[in-house]
Amino acid sequence: MTEVDQMDNNGGTMVSPAWAESAFLKACRCEPTDYTPVWLMRQAGRYMKEYRDLRSKVSFLDLCQRPDLATEVMITAVERLGVDAAIIFSDILLILQPMGMDLEYVAGTGPVLHNPVRTVDHAKALMEVEPAESLNYVFEAVKATRAALPPHLPLIGFAGAPFTVASYMIEGGGSKNYRYTKQFMYCYSSAWHDLMALITRATVKYLNGQATAGAQALQLFDSWIGCLSPADYQTFVFPHMQHLFASLSADVPVIHFGTGNATLLKQQREAGGDVIGLDFRVDLSSTWDQLGETAVQGNLDPCVLFADPEVIQQKSKLILDQVRGRNGHIFNLGHGVLPETPVDHVIELVDYVHNQSTKN
Amino acid sequence: MTEVDQMDNNGGTMVSPAWAESAFLKACRCEPTDYTPVWLMRQAGRYMKEYRDLRSKVSFLDLCQRPDLATEVMITAVERLGVDAAIIFSDILLILQPMGMDLEYVAGTGPVLHNPVRTVDHAKALMEVEPAESLNYVFEAVKATRAALPPHLPLIGFAGAPFTVASYMIEGGGSKNYRYTKQFMYCYSSAWHDLMALITRATVKYLNGQATAGAQALQLFDSWIGCLSPADYQTFVFPHMQHLFASLSADVPVIHFGTGNATLLKQQREAGGDVIGLDFRVDLSSTWDQLGETAVQGNLDPCVLFADPEVIQQKSKLILDQVRGRNGHIFNLGHGVLPETPVDHVIELVDYVHNQSTKN
Repeated sequence: MTEVDQMDNNGGTMVSPAWAESAFLKACRCEPTDYTPVWLMRQAGRYMKEYRDLRSKVSFLDLCQRPDLATEVMITAVERLGVDAAIIFSDILLILQPMGMDLEYVAGTGPVLHNPVRTVDHAKALMEVEPAESLNYVFEAVKATRAALPPHLPLIGFAGAPFTVASYMIEGGGSKNYRYTKQFMYCYSSAWHDLMALITRATVKYLNGQATAGAQALQLFDSWIGCLSPADYQTFVFPHMQHLFASLSADVPVIHFGTGNATLLKQQREAGGDVIGLDFRVDLSSTWDQLGETAVQGNLDPCVLFADPEVIQQKSKLILDQVRGRNGHIFNLGHGVLPETPVDHVIELVDYVHNQSTKN
Repeated sequence: MTEVDQMDNNGGTMVSPAWAESAFLKACRCEPTDYTPVWLMRQAGRYMKEYRDLRSKVSFLDLCQRPDLATEVMITAVERLGVDAAIIFSDILLILQPMGMDLEYVAGTGPVLHNPVRTVDHAKALMEVEPAESLNYVFEAVKATRAALPPHLPLIGFAGAPFTVASYMIEGGGSKNYRYTKQFMYCYSSAWHDLMALITRATVKYLNGQATAGAQALQLFDSWIGCLSPADYQTFVFPHMQHLFASLSADVPVIHFGTGNATLLKQQREAGGDVIGLDFRVDLSSTWDQLGETAVQGNLDPCVLFADPEVIQQKSKLILDQVRGRNGHIFNLGHGVLPETPVDHVIELVDYVHNQSTKN
């Protein structure tokens, strides 16, 4: 592990922490690495027995809001899997509570917002978020997780991107067609932009706060952006994303992730981010070629983890072979680990990626 | 309306029916038209009062299986909307009943298959379909709808494409992640190919039978294909689609449609079809450029129909302006009309497309 000397604010030298030279952060900077770093979206979750055991005693919301438990869950996952980065245990919708939204996680259904934003008045009633007050428990979770991790492992903070968060607010939960979201966007476009600006302001403070609290990288989840046409993305989303990325003052790399968004990737890349997250619907190497100079993260289909180990290896090898010799690839799934995924398959995947990509 | 003389089988001349020179069929053949033809996927459905009234008296399955009612529903829709093509009122899953699957349409949930195909033995137990026997009611619906339509209006027959049909069979209904479908595909790949071949054989007979019964065009709905990576499409779907298109003996144009499939369009075009259906996630004109010489159908976001008429016109104009002067565009939505869509908005859309695209 190389240690890099840097000048501190007083002109003296200080030693960088070990994570600065981790494979994950090097890949974020498109620097050469000894092996391909790997972590998995939703790497701590229901597919893991330790997680289910804990969740049998505590609600999902309580788990997110208790820094000690959030830390325990993530540390357990990172240790079991041997991944190259941790991500705080949290949820993209927590930011909605301090806006005045009634958030509940319903077993078998997922998140429900009991007071969906369907009118301009609903949107006007939303409150400005001061994460330092209302979301301080997340910053505490960042600090606690960082303190519990070994120094060579970077910690990722995250937030939902404004469109994805807005879609939950307006639909009142998950959606198939995003009918109410788009109706709001088309019919109340001024209120839409105000809503996006409100979420963007909150998200900037929230992400900068996570970096200050100890996160070494950030990920923006624009998970449902793929329901938009390129023209609608440009009009209704792009300016907010561009402003968001420009407002992230913290000197940490940002991963910009979406799904079903093949037709939007160039615009998303232009909006910002050091690493572009790619879902499993795109061909990794040709898409990377189109995006140009950037790091990329992805893109194994999470469903592959239900297959036999030979298939998992074959599919992972295809990805690794495609980008062999290029700097800036972080191995991940194209979306989160699915609930019933066999945990042994996940462990084997991480091992395989490390072994297969190690440069001799 | 131009009438074209053709030679019949006995060497005599016969007069082509009026539909042969309809704007819709001309566009399918990439010939110039006086205006852009328009029809809408799911143009007869729950958003229409006449349909809801009928459905209050008869189940969805009964409606599909009674040619008189299926005809009534489609003729009513075509007359109200003024569209340029009719499509038989039917469903892509009817083909599953004669395979031995227990199909039910559950209000509020959608289609449910009570005996999902999860093992190789389940797949082996499926029966070969002889549409002339088990799906004759669909052929009767084609005949009855054709007879009830004015001669200038072409009638479209349709089927689900094998992957989309297989996904319903394996998942047991709609799905978010297609986990069981992909698991089957990866783990039992030989049985997967047998299953796809079975569905393909049935679909070829089914579509050829619809053409013989009186359909002037056919559409293959590969609605859920967009959940696959390009590599998986190539391995698990492409050969079957290519065989399917090659086996359609009837001399009618075929529309090849999918959603969320931006990264698969080139492969789908190569597999076959005279018209490529484009969903709202792609930019129409640049995608058409990439596809080369083909007709295209699409691609207004169905959610736009919930917006004010000015927005509907603006979004439709964007589409028409993009492809003005090009032959072979059929205006449609990027997916089906959504349940609560205001019917007046749909009527106005059809009028607008006609007026805006008419060449003076």
